[in-house]
Amino acid sequence: MARFSPDRLALPIVQAPLAGGPSTPALAAAVSGAGGLGFLAAGYKTAGAVAEDVAAVRAATDAPFGVNLFVPPGQPADHGVVARYAATLVHEAERQGAMLGDPRHDDDDWEAKLALLHDARPAVASFTFGCPAPEAIAALQGDDVAVWVTVTTPAEARAAAHAGADALVVQGAEAGGHRGGFDDAAPAAIGLLALLQLVRAETDLTLVASGGIMTGAAVAAVLVAGAAAAQLGSALLLTPEAGTSAPHRAALAAEGETALTRAFSGRTARGIVNRFQREHDDAPSAYPEVHHLTAPLRAAARDHGDAEAINLWAGEAHRLAEAEPAAALVRRLAADARAALRAAAAE
Amino acid sequence: MARFSPDRLALPIVQAPLAGGPSTPALAAAVSGAGGLGFLAAGYKTAGAVAEDVAAVRAATDAPFGVNLFVPPGQPADHGVVARYAATLVHEAERQGAMLGDPRHDDDDWEAKLALLHDARPAVASFTFGCPAPEAIAALQGDDVAVWVTVTTPAEARAAAHAGADALVVQGAEAGGHRGGFDDAAPAAIGLLALLQLVRAETDLTLVASGGIMTGAAVAAVLVAGAAAAQLGSALLLTPEAGTSAPHRAALAAEGETALTRAFSGRTARGIVNRFQREHDDAPSAYPEVHHLTAPLRAAARDHGDAEAINLWAGEAHRLAEAEPAAALVRRLAADARAALRAAAAE
Repeated sequence: MARFSPDRLALPIVQAPLAGGPSTPALAAAVSGAGGLGFLAAGYKTAGAVAEDVAAVRAATDAPFGVNLFVPPGQPADHGVVARYAATLVHEAERQGAMLGDPRHDDDDWEAKLALLHDARPAVASFTFGCPAPEAIAALQGDDVAVWVTVTTPAEARAAAHAGADALVVQGAEAGGHRGGFDDAAPAAIGLLALLQLVRAETDLTLVASGGIMTGAAVAAVLVAGAAAAQLGSALLLTPEAGTSAPHRAALAAEGETALTRAFSGRTARGIVNRFQREHDDAPSAYPEVHHLTAPLRAAARDHGDAEAINLWAGEAHRLAEAEPAAALVRRLAADARAALRAAAAE
Repeated sequence: MARFSPDRLALPIVQAPLAGGPSTPALAAAVSGAGGLGFLAAGYKTAGAVAEDVAAVRAATDAPFGVNLFVPPGQPADHGVVARYAATLVHEAERQGAMLGDPRHDDDDWEAKLALLHDARPAVASFTFGCPAPEAIAALQGDDVAVWVTVTTPAEARAAAHAGADALVVQGAEAGGHRGGFDDAAPAAIGLLALLQLVRAETDLTLVASGGIMTGAAVAAVLVAGAAAAQLGSALLLTPEAGTSAPHRAALAAEGETALTRAFSGRTARGIVNRFQREHDDAPSAYPEVHHLTAPLRAAARDHGDAEAINLWAGEAHRLAEAEPAAALVRRLAADARAALRAAAAE
């Protein structure tokens, strides 16, 4: 059987993986069941927990879905850099009544998760923070798992195409959450429409467009710009199926500006600007050490409902998010996209 | 006669004004003559020079065209801030064999240019760096001049709609040259596709999309996203009609990354990163004082062909620019846009 391609989808909509809370089997199953492609985020979880999520999606739907993995960073961060950043967090820890986390270096259970992919064989495995080795890509493809790589620059697109990816998730600067590119020392943030043109000039690979897509008109726009599907993140964060926390939901529906920050995880990500993000705009590039360091603070703040001290990942157009069941939302955006295409083609 | 609307264009393409060299009557006439809307940049010129440009366009074509004005800044910059920045430029002045310019505050001949608009009555007057007063907008409209205001945020879109603008030029973060928003102290840089959705949620006004649009597929994408036309800047900089300098042309065709900078003008703009931009990434918000201060350095560097010390304004997708006569380029992109729309609608 040929590997999965987004051309096979009934609706040209892919769920962003949404690691760190919002990802749930219910959300992935709802998007896939509606005719889009749901995703499970393997990031921050054990391989065993991901296996349970896979089983839960399969219990809910026969439709294809994907699993997203974080490619592990090459080198541990400098201890001194991490220690200096930790010192700036002591006051926040007191404020939240929490201890700082252990800033350990790990690979997010990489080998076990790769093994899980071979075992569970989701339709798609997508990768963030880097490109797997050509051998790892070929091995997944040999098990009928399509491999998608997240890219943020034309150079990353060339590298992923050369490594053998089936498709590229083209992440524009507008996207919420982590920049998915290969190198956090020089994180790229090119606007989606510019990036789609630049990447298309490099490769004929199938493209999935990601970043700030909240309406059917924008879904249609990226299809016209050459993408096979639109990947939605913030647009799905207010659905009842998403595991989005209450303070995060409240912030998404308001007008807050977003900015790029390393304050929460040590890796560049877009979030709604709040006190913590403002106070720590000098955070180092030290992932996942800083992620582990701040995890207990964020958990405590989430428990208190304190939106000023948690990561409020959101894309630039977040306030267009609507609270609506995921399947209905996916169907509505696809219908609006069709209408926008027809209207523009008629003129 | 009703005021001009982009719906009347034979081709949905508007030329960006391209102040500071690239703007020429020949370029505006070529774009308008091909069925798009050419523009003259009034910025940095005397009203008399702009009147000559208007006459030159009218001698070349009967087609409608526009004139773009810079809205003057409210307050002169702090003398000490400007003097401290000037001190960092002394070495560069020696290197270029030039004197620093006089960092004067001026209003770019605002009242004389407004009077010229009433006199010359171009089809469109577009405004950058702010929104004219409602009375000034109404007066131009009374003389059958359509008024377009450049916006970079939903709040600016609300303000311009409230002031009575006929259309909004929606400038995404991808755009080359100056950010056209109202407030350089907090320059917004929202990706074009996200911004189009946010602005459309605020107003039903006609929108012209700007920022990183280099291909017919991208022209089609912004039309599907709700714009009435696409505004092209970098895409036209290599045309023979543009007054783009030789070192600027060479940089545009290469792979150089772009970034936002105040180094050259004291106002945030996107240019291809070069030595001057890197060395002066701490430049203050002080426009037009810094523009005047650096003008002789930039002129000397341009004469030397030194691309490392001039403003290489360019959008994020600049390297897709092609050297082609402007009319042929406009016709080609419009045909490609039609083809992209038809292909997407057929699926």
